[in-house]
Amino acid sequence: MKALKKVPKSKIVYAFSPKHKPAEHVKPGEEISLELEDAFGGQVRDEKIAIEKLDWSKVNGATGPIYIEGAEPHDTIAVRILDVKVADKGIIAVIPKQGALKEKPFKAKIKVVPISGGYAHFEREKVKVNPMIGTIGVAPKNGEQPTGTLGRHGGNMDVKEITKGATLYLPVFTKGALFAAGDLHAVQADGEACVSAIEVAGEVTLTFDVLKNLSISWPILETEDCYAVLTCGDSLDEACSLAVEEAVKALMREHGWSFEEAYMFTSLAVDLKINQVVDPKKGVRAVIPKRYVSIESFHVGDFRH
Amino acid sequence: MKALKKVPKSKIVYAFSPKHKPAEHVKPGEEISLELEDAFGGQVRDEKIAIEKLDWSKVNGATGPIYIEGAEPHDTIAVRILDVKVADKGIIAVIPKQGALKEKPFKAKIKVVPISGGYAHFEREKVKVNPMIGTIGVAPKNGEQPTGTLGRHGGNMDVKEITKGATLYLPVFTKGALFAAGDLHAVQADGEACVSAIEVAGEVTLTFDVLKNLSISWPILETEDCYAVLTCGDSLDEACSLAVEEAVKALMREHGWSFEEAYMFTSLAVDLKINQVVDPKKGVRAVIPKRYVSIESFHVGDFRH
Repeated sequence: MKALKKVPKSKIVYAFSPKHKPAEHVKPGEEISLELEDAFGGQVRDEKIAIEKLDWSKVNGATGPIYIEGAEPHDTIAVRILDVKVADKGIIAVIPKQGALKEKPFKAKIKVVPISGGYAHFEREKVKVNPMIGTIGVAPKNGEQPTGTLGRHGGNMDVKEITKGATLYLPVFTKGALFAAGDLHAVQADGEACVSAIEVAGEVTLTFDVLKNLSISWPILETEDCYAVLTCGDSLDEACSLAVEEAVKALMREHGWSFEEAYMFTSLAVDLKINQVVDPKKGVRAVIPKRYVSIESFHVGDFRH
Repeated sequence: MKALKKVPKSKIVYAFSPKHKPAEHVKPGEEISLELEDAFGGQVRDEKIAIEKLDWSKVNGATGPIYIEGAEPHDTIAVRILDVKVADKGIIAVIPKQGALKEKPFKAKIKVVPISGGYAHFEREKVKVNPMIGTIGVAPKNGEQPTGTLGRHGGNMDVKEITKGATLYLPVFTKGALFAAGDLHAVQADGEACVSAIEVAGEVTLTFDVLKNLSISWPILETEDCYAVLTCGDSLDEACSLAVEEAVKALMREHGWSFEEAYMFTSLAVDLKINQVVDPKKGVRAVIPKRYVSIESFHVGDFRH
């Protein structure tokens, strides 16, 4: 049996960029494991450290990039998330002027959160863990994007459903795609209200497929029952309009419906959900049950009908 | 056995107002049934009618108001939804310059949707019904509010979880509360993207309780597992900030946590969800599992700790 390829957390980038040299190459279908540093770059070891003393150039890194053999611009890669393992200790922080309540006066605070028995232990309460990948994406179309932001290339999307068993479809803009992942969360609610979740180090195991006949406009997440279009904008309202537009187009392609019919159906069967409200761009997902669309419905091209 | 009180759909109002004469009076715990007209005021009988020919003064009505004995300003009423029955035919419409894609060019269109066997039948597809109350509220604090809008008094909130089995807590601003409900939907997704859902006539059966020692800032929905704070704002972002603020305050009261701790915990355990993106104000809900709060956590007053 061939040894699983492993990428150590020392292979860290702070931007998604077509100029980066690959940390590793993989073939479609080949399993690879990435070791991930936590979003604070491992700088927070206890609750005594002052937030303002952190080296912010070492925050929000991602492991990679991974060159996927055969991936070319206009293709789509399917990232299958086989496993997400997190460490037994995470960190959550509030930072003044950050998060959904950034207008309120409050102090910086860091909390170390033990993780055991499938729960994160916060004071006397516990929250069931749901290990997820906060930052996941490819080199963008134009220039480079810091790993702390998000866009059509993926990035810091903070979607709590990007977890073990899910498949994330990402558009390819650069030969080899140049994939990277970081910002593991042991658990995060939709919204990530305070700007951080339980930030944790860990390891993810993935495979990649290259879909040559599929071009997509935004990342698409496939879960057991649904496809979700992951959009972002300067406001949640903008992100929602973009998500509805993609859902309507997919339904038109799949069913041969008019714009008006697909728009109606979206109102009935497509849930608009919040990913996060705290990153440089706000993110939402339009969640469409699989009975109504297939991944091919998201192909940007002529309508099939 | 005493006959169930029934309010016919002819008892319709187009505003929540402290000036309205009650259509009926009920005692706490007394069952009452309200017959509801559909949101188009029953004007759409087939797909041939032109949207612009509708009498818009007859749209978005609510049945009521109901005077709840013993309810006084600063109290809270608990509206227990015992049943929501819908007719076997609904209507959905798209209207130019309305909905999440109001900037796009499209035509007015009306579709009559048959409802049978627990499904709404849309073209060759079907969507499982989830009968819900779109408009539900009380007379507001100041002046009157059209039944088409929403606020701290409830109103046109379009929350898909306001359905059979749920309990809605509403602040009381006027003696008797002056409750009304309308805008039934056979099914609606989170977002109500196109501005309408499957608009349908029907009947709701309710009881009311008066909570004398509870004052709340926003409507609170209780479902089997969760409490949800229902806020609204000019943007989704504003609605989210308001919802997070209420969640943080509830967690502080319940657990004796600092603002910073409650803000952190909100990021882990409180899902921000979209109600609708298409009404005069955008609405969200902050969903908090019952293991972390009780209805008393939402009482506006001194912290218990």
